[in-house]
Amino acid sequence: VRAEVLAVGTELLLGDIANTNAQHIATSLARAGVDCLRHVCVGDNEERIARAIEEGLERADAVIVTGGLGPTQDDVTREAIARVTGRALITDEAVVRALETRFAQFGRTMPPSNLRQAQRPEGSVAIDAVGTAPGLIVEHGGRVIYALPGVPWEMKDMLASTVIPDLQRRSGRGASIVSRVLRIGGMAESGVADALSSLWDRLGQGHLTMAFLAGGGEIRVRLTAKSSTADEASSFLDEAEREVRSTLGDAVVGRDEQTLEVVVGELLSERGWTLGAAESLTGGLLGARITSVPGSSEYFRGSLVAYTTDVKHNVLGVASSTLEKSGAVSEAAAREMAAGTRRVLEADVGVATTGVAGPAEHGAPVGSVFIAVDGPAGADARGLKLPGDRSTVRELTVSAALNLVRLYLLE
Amino acid sequence: VRAEVLAVGTELLLGDIANTNAQHIATSLARAGVDCLRHVCVGDNEERIARAIEEGLERADAVIVTGGLGPTQDDVTREAIARVTGRALITDEAVVRALETRFAQFGRTMPPSNLRQAQRPEGSVAIDAVGTAPGLIVEHGGRVIYALPGVPWEMKDMLASTVIPDLQRRSGRGASIVSRVLRIGGMAESGVADALSSLWDRLGQGHLTMAFLAGGGEIRVRLTAKSSTADEASSFLDEAEREVRSTLGDAVVGRDEQTLEVVVGELLSERGWTLGAAESLTGGLLGARITSVPGSSEYFRGSLVAYTTDVKHNVLGVASSTLEKSGAVSEAAAREMAAGTRRVLEADVGVATTGVAGPAEHGAPVGSVFIAVDGPAGADARGLKLPGDRSTVRELTVSAALNLVRLYLLE
Repeated sequence: VRAEVLAVGTELLLGDIANTNAQHIATSLARAGVDCLRHVCVGDNEERIARAIEEGLERADAVIVTGGLGPTQDDVTREAIARVTGRALITDEAVVRALETRFAQFGRTMPPSNLRQAQRPEGSVAIDAVGTAPGLIVEHGGRVIYALPGVPWEMKDMLASTVIPDLQRRSGRGASIVSRVLRIGGMAESGVADALSSLWDRLGQGHLTMAFLAGGGEIRVRLTAKSSTADEASSFLDEAEREVRSTLGDAVVGRDEQTLEVVVGELLSERGWTLGAAESLTGGLLGARITSVPGSSEYFRGSLVAYTTDVKHNVLGVASSTLEKSGAVSEAAAREMAAGTRRVLEADVGVATTGVAGPAEHGAPVGSVFIAVDGPAGADARGLKLPGDRSTVRELTVSAALNLVRLYLLE
Repeated sequence: VRAEVLAVGTELLLGDIANTNAQHIATSLARAGVDCLRHVCVGDNEERIARAIEEGLERADAVIVTGGLGPTQDDVTREAIARVTGRALITDEAVVRALETRFAQFGRTMPPSNLRQAQRPEGSVAIDAVGTAPGLIVEHGGRVIYALPGVPWEMKDMLASTVIPDLQRRSGRGASIVSRVLRIGGMAESGVADALSSLWDRLGQGHLTMAFLAGGGEIRVRLTAKSSTADEASSFLDEAEREVRSTLGDAVVGRDEQTLEVVVGELLSERGWTLGAAESLTGGLLGARITSVPGSSEYFRGSLVAYTTDVKHNVLGVASSTLEKSGAVSEAAAREMAAGTRRVLEADVGVATTGVAGPAEHGAPVGSVFIAVDGPAGADARGLKLPGDRSTVRELTVSAALNLVRLYLLE
């Protein structure tokens, strides 16, 4: 089964929000072994939505549409699907009652505009709403259109509960495509590519493909294997993973969902250690990334975001002499911040970030960053020159700090 | 001039990363008054890239391609453009020398794979590299293809310095399209839509369109006006904005770039006040969002991320009796956290978040959140029941906390 993803929304087309729905759907399709050919995004325009659905159905067996199912006048995905499939829109009385009940539960009267959400093309199947918008399954000419709300958590719920199982049912048997991502820390993309070039040359001949992707302070190596059985495809991947790991060593952070923050959490849990952070330029991003992992309260104590010099002194205990002699953006300050947060938060390991994210220079050029770690096995620190704009520098700093903690814990 | 955006990368198609490049390009096009018809994303496959470029050139005057210009074997955008335009690939010796110089500056020898980045279709114009990959401008049949690297900060640099000015030069004169986004805090999408329905009905007849978009804890109302002159289009927008503001009052946070975090910063600066945060379930996200604004060190002292109960007690001074009687997820705890961070960080205003982000319950159901503010004008707090998954609950909490600070500062 081949699928395409169509995101509907002028807000996406104009760049008001990122198309994270397409990303989530793509990940789910890849895991389910469904080939995804293309993502498309069009605005809230009935004709353009209809044309994009038609084109998608020519290339693929299934088109997954997100967005345009809301209650407002610019939500026209229902109308576009009715047009493409040549069906009338009917009002689903069961959905009307469900909407009324839902509003009553919150003690509110349903605004009249929400009634539009009860409409659907004749002969379609409604997917039960998790918010207020129901989803749709519409069969057409041996192919299928799924329409899901644009609200991410509603979309994710329907995708997992209904769309992926329905697609797998339709796909029956066929070739198994399995892929695996290895996450590499602390290396440049071209360095990874060159280190793995002989592996790449050999893979080019067989059932395996390899792709590199850079972003967020790490390089990911995606290995994809095709075979008649999932077991055989997985064994191809196992062999390739062994080769990558033996070539790159400790630079391999983990695979698939084993992000830096997950691996750091696993290493801390293994040792029964806790972590505390001290942040300057990252402003809380480091803590936010560590706590994006469910259950992180087991090993994460907290973070002291010291955005001004006197908070670094008063709260973290960075010495006045250090701040005067070396400045707040220095290896010495980073080391004292790491030791300070370890002490104040009563954590086994402290990690700290300080530096200049830009756009203005603050005593040092933009991209000058120092990270430090302090713990039972002593302290370590690094000075970095990071490229990019404010948000890139902050993100790269978080990854570098997490990688420093990881390497510290591995030793 | 009508443009389309084509993002190339199997990592995008498989969902390994979100297509934030398309978002950035779309925003820049909208600001420059260039209509954007469609975003497309395909994998690292020469034939599919070529077909997507061809289709884009049929609908639009310009196709902006990102990605596939890197040094590795799966970067084939150069080859796809050569195929579509029927040109040979040549090696640009000036680019070879620039690459060698760049690597020498960092004290490294250029890996041989980087030589691929010096290739370009005959007759194309190279856009100077800001990282290692040069961009391309390729004219074809009266239309134009721009190829930019996939690395966000490199892409952004070339887009702003070269692509947008080149597109504006090509567009000459025409209708002016101006749009404006009003950001609404603390209301549901259907509530905003119903409140503005009479405005919508009138706008439908004229030169204005209105669209709603929900996400990240706010509703955005996008107003777009078309006219022969930019001044007239702007005056249509001014009138519509006045109506929206008079209807929605204080719920209007700001317009365009005036996000919650920017407006909170402006209000603090006006009063000469500083802000400190205390975070539990948001884990640093609140501080990260406040410090995403350049210059926030003028008014932001820092954030105390207290991810465990004893850190709430030891660092923020939340009373043991409160933690025993009401628990860490309570309005009382939120109020004491806000007062505590105000005291510890010596800030004029303190803001606090506590709650359950999920997926596991912690003494309260997932989505139970308390936010509080404490300052010279007294204290305020709210209890919220937030929908969605872990990351949605955390994001909505940050927005609600910032909105509470905004309303506090407005009073």
